[in-house]
Amino acid sequence: MRVVLPAGTTETALIDGISAAGAAPDLMAHTPSADVEILAYGEPTAAPVTPVSPTGCPTPAAVTRAVREVIGFDLSVVDAGLARSTTAPTVDLGATPGDDIRASVAVPDASTIFDRAYGFGSSLPDDEILLGETVPGGTTTALGVLTALGEPMSVSSSLPENPIERKRRVVEEGLDASDLEAGSCDGNPMAAIRAVGDPVQAVVAGIAAGALESGTDVTLGGGTQMVAVAALLRHAGVDGPLSIATTSFVAAGQGTELLTTCERFDCELVVTDPGFDGRDHVAMSRYCAGEAKEGVAMGGVLSLVDDGGMAAVRAQFAAVCDRLGIDSNADESIDSSESSDDRGS
Amino acid sequence: MRVVLPAGTTETALIDGISAAGAAPDLMAHTPSADVEILAYGEPTAAPVTPVSPTGCPTPAAVTRAVREVIGFDLSVVDAGLARSTTAPTVDLGATPGDDIRASVAVPDASTIFDRAYGFGSSLPDDEILLGETVPGGTTTALGVLTALGEPMSVSSSLPENPIERKRRVVEEGLDASDLEAGSCDGNPMAAIRAVGDPVQAVVAGIAAGALESGTDVTLGGGTQMVAVAALLRHAGVDGPLSIATTSFVAAGQGTELLTTCERFDCELVVTDPGFDGRDHVAMSRYCAGEAKEGVAMGGVLSLVDDGGMAAVRAQFAAVCDRLGIDSNADESIDSSESSDDRGS
Repeated sequence: MRVVLPAGTTETALIDGISAAGAAPDLMAHTPSADVEILAYGEPTAAPVTPVSPTGCPTPAAVTRAVREVIGFDLSVVDAGLARSTTAPTVDLGATPGDDIRASVAVPDASTIFDRAYGFGSSLPDDEILLGETVPGGTTTALGVLTALGEPMSVSSSLPENPIERKRRVVEEGLDASDLEAGSCDGNPMAAIRAVGDPVQAVVAGIAAGALESGTDVTLGGGTQMVAVAALLRHAGVDGPLSIATTSFVAAGQGTELLTTCERFDCELVVTDPGFDGRDHVAMSRYCAGEAKEGVAMGGVLSLVDDGGMAAVRAQFAAVCDRLGIDSNADESIDSSESSDDRGS
Repeated sequence: MRVVLPAGTTETALIDGISAAGAAPDLMAHTPSADVEILAYGEPTAAPVTPVSPTGCPTPAAVTRAVREVIGFDLSVVDAGLARSTTAPTVDLGATPGDDIRASVAVPDASTIFDRAYGFGSSLPDDEILLGETVPGGTTTALGVLTALGEPMSVSSSLPENPIERKRRVVEEGLDASDLEAGSCDGNPMAAIRAVGDPVQAVVAGIAAGALESGTDVTLGGGTQMVAVAALLRHAGVDGPLSIATTSFVAAGQGTELLTTCERFDCELVVTDPGFDGRDHVAMSRYCAGEAKEGVAMGGVLSLVDDGGMAAVRAQFAAVCDRLGIDSNADESIDSSESSDDRGS
């Protein structure tokens, strides 16, 4: 199996309070670069930090890496607008970081990037690929394109201080700044990305469309952000088979809406539970408390693990956390009001 | 095991008659890009051709890929001066293609590239790495730096029309153009690369030095070109353990000189025979006739295959050739006077 992982950044992620993909805003620009180095090498090599949430929950890249160390898979990281250089090998499609969606244009070259990604996707000789993503602020831009396409979908959260209202305000401001309103981009997915999306969406959608066109099976590994990609693809007229593979943490937060939405976009939904519940490990506890939840193809690669392999994945995740300097016995008291609904949110 | 593969190009490769790494000179610039795509994906994805020698012998990348399909290994391709973009994931160290060594300066930024490569090598958390290369014209630049360092070594060939004299003339012209003579760069390896080397040497040597410094074991996978890298490292004062892993095809052409030279640079030498002899496959026959011989880490990865696995490697090599459109039953008459002594030469 080949995992294809577009990685990028946006100015949207820097809006106060919408992303937990980094302990502090000034470190967030490093998060995707660190994530792909963890996937490629097992730990950050050029990036100065291991991404953790403000409360210390480790990046889903640590889970994805643990799966890689157990079952192995080919990896192609795609530079979809990295803000910091990385020593992980990357495919260069000429993408640059996205702007703040509250600017008039968020992704000026959305169509060009989509086209290049399409070419790359169609060139892959693989029978099947698993597409992931790492982009801080990604669920806000997901909400952006879903709203612009006229596809209502709330972003999951069971927490009292759900940042969803903040995200909605940001998206409304973004649509206003682009002289658009909800549904304006129905049938015009590139306009949606250009106005209120991010470059990673253009790359993921382009690769998926190109791969499907050339007969490669495509699984989208992720939660809300991959639902947005599915919506973009359907609005682009791509009618090939799609499936979304996500974690039980996303599914738990979204209830039945995730399944309903997947059905609307004719997407199969696969939910995998890594069995972190009740384990004596602080990082696993934090995932169970709803932190991070998904990202960096975590749900997708977990779906590749058979039942008998999940214990090995948990053991390896603990080993990866050790390697990354994440204390398994840190203070387990979690202020749940600080938890975000999705690592990429 | 991680295979780290710096890939680059030079204008030196375009000098008439010194390289067989491409069916025609105008296709040679694509050779390293195609090689790394074959390694990463199993076939060229963006590159327009599968590299073959003028007589149709497939690139060693096909053998290295076959080994990868049998035993698996991590791969980090490093852009060490590619002339054509590739959709293989690459590490970007800012290297650019090398000039013709007959110009006054062949690699203006040799020291900068070495330093960046050193940083990359020292950042790798691996216990061991295998370093390869793909750069057309690479044995001529190898002869260049060996001569500049004052390390006499002939480049192997058992053929009547051995291009070694042509290479020597090119190196002499290169030294003249840089106001140097044989041995002028004793103890100054960066000056040797800058004058008569190539950017791939700077990257391979830098990664090796950095990796050794940080406690990673290093194997150099290749023939003459890796001997030149070992010489560069020793002249740079790097005294860590080194081994060179090459093919029986290189060893057969070089007789005892290869071993003697490795001993001079305190390098262990490992020679692996893939057992192509007597097989009914034209590509294997061509390797046995002395074509291609080595390159793209071929000898290095063959050394990772245990005795019982070599039959599977041969079968997979045949499958890779099929996939690449190389006919196993093509005309087997080989005009040996056209064979080069080394694919990279």
